[in-house]
Amino acid sequence: MQLLDGKSCAAEIRSELREIVRLRKLENKKVPHLTAIIVGQNGGSISYVNAKVAACEEIGFESTLISFDESISEEDLLKKILELNSNIDIDGFIVQLPLPSHINELKITQAIDPKKDVDGFHPQNLGNMMLNIPSFLPATPAGIIELLSRNNIQTEGKNCVVIGRSNIVGMPLSIMLARNSNPGNCTVTLAHSKTKNLTEICRNADILIAAIGKPEFVTKEMVKEGAVVIDVGTTRVEDPSRERGWRLCGDVKFDEVAEKCSFITPVPGGIGPMTIASLMMNTLKALELQGK
Amino acid sequence: MQLLDGKSCAAEIRSELREIVRLRKLENKKVPHLTAIIVGQNGGSISYVNAKVAACEEIGFESTLISFDESISEEDLLKKILELNSNIDIDGFIVQLPLPSHINELKITQAIDPKKDVDGFHPQNLGNMMLNIPSFLPATPAGIIELLSRNNIQTEGKNCVVIGRSNIVGMPLSIMLARNSNPGNCTVTLAHSKTKNLTEICRNADILIAAIGKPEFVTKEMVKEGAVVIDVGTTRVEDPSRERGWRLCGDVKFDEVAEKCSFITPVPGGIGPMTIASLMMNTLKALELQGK
Repeated sequence: MQLLDGKSCAAEIRSELREIVRLRKLENKKVPHLTAIIVGQNGGSISYVNAKVAACEEIGFESTLISFDESISEEDLLKKILELNSNIDIDGFIVQLPLPSHINELKITQAIDPKKDVDGFHPQNLGNMMLNIPSFLPATPAGIIELLSRNNIQTEGKNCVVIGRSNIVGMPLSIMLARNSNPGNCTVTLAHSKTKNLTEICRNADILIAAIGKPEFVTKEMVKEGAVVIDVGTTRVEDPSRERGWRLCGDVKFDEVAEKCSFITPVPGGIGPMTIASLMMNTLKALELQGK
Repeated sequence: MQLLDGKSCAAEIRSELREIVRLRKLENKKVPHLTAIIVGQNGGSISYVNAKVAACEEIGFESTLISFDESISEEDLLKKILELNSNIDIDGFIVQLPLPSHINELKITQAIDPKKDVDGFHPQNLGNMMLNIPSFLPATPAGIIELLSRNNIQTEGKNCVVIGRSNIVGMPLSIMLARNSNPGNCTVTLAHSKTKNLTEICRNADILIAAIGKPEFVTKEMVKEGAVVIDVGTTRVEDPSRERGWRLCGDVKFDEVAEKCSFITPVPGGIGPMTIASLMMNTLKALELQGK
């Protein structure tokens, strides 16, 4: 078994981006500027957003963090989005999900200018992805593709099972892996809560991707000998042995699955850092696509 | 084995639409107006477009057919599209594919106003489909879903295999069948030219959909006993016994497959008429969404 080390792969990407920023500065070109909006005090969201800002600082991107109280109205949030859409200094921005229940996430997603939508959640960008038109790929699926690619994992003709059909991970990832590209050209099965005989389906997977947010859901019985296993889960579970009282737990029962597979991503240190690296790459792309 | 009779199902839809048009006229509301652009003299395209115009006439929609010579430049075609985008009398329009090789189909697709894109090919509409935002669903997949629905074929939890990953049929259909809706909630496998062990994969399908355009590609060995088989293929093959010298041939070897399955669509008279019926439904929807 070999570890797919997202942490070091992401560090490599950040170092490449740092070099690009250095060269841009030498040429007196604009440095990418990412803005993140966060609403409320969700612990997971705060730590993600902080990690994004830290990544910007490390590679020399400018960043702005805008925090709103949980009580902000949908209207006021939309107003801020329109302001960022027209602010030429901001190349890309994200609204950290989830949002409080009184705010319609889809409405927010659709309000973001697709040219600044570095999370790749806007319908225009998802449609572009389907048609293979250059655009912003959703950050987590793009990070997974990048990790496979940089580890020279062959995907063509492989049977791939994606568990979980979320708008931001499972659904777009299933398309990215199925389409005619490299990585890609997999035979993809998209499984979800209504899937029957899931164990049997997963056991046929050469590449198994778990993106459901259920700690340790994937057990060794569900994994084919020699499979590549990608764990997208990052659920906080109680852990009294840690000072902070919790640890991040993936969707895969790591210890027993690791023994059976050829490659596996750890949690933490797997897809999480790759997602942030993708976001950075998208932000640079935003700047370039806007011709700055 | 029961025939999934697309021809009669489409006739039923057209008759419902005719009634809606009748009521709209009584209320002095606008009647839907569909425009179709055709470029060149491709026999298949001409007969499709004629069938679309005929359907409009039958149900009382207005229709306009615009024919261009094969030599039309991309620029002139784009100019016509912009003109139709801003013509308030035209509620929806389509550009019949395929186009001559000197014209970029993706560019044409993207130029159509998403609000008038009744074929549902624009990235914005495909993205909306992914996010389950009300919009125009691609006509052929929508016709398949409608046919399943009107025949009360249960899809939830079924294993579905879609062969063919085209932008206009296989890829969007795989999403529509996988998402959380009814019909939908299938466990979908998207297979294509790079798929290995295709026969084995197809034999697991409760619902098997062939959309590759290879005459009689699907044989009985590939079909599970009792499966639902949907044949999207419509290839013209030589047939000296017919006066016109050809017949339409599906992707499924009908006679031998029919014996094994519970439901099957014929070619012709299956998905073809349903595609046209979907286009009509989308045209009415366009009018309604534009608040006319």
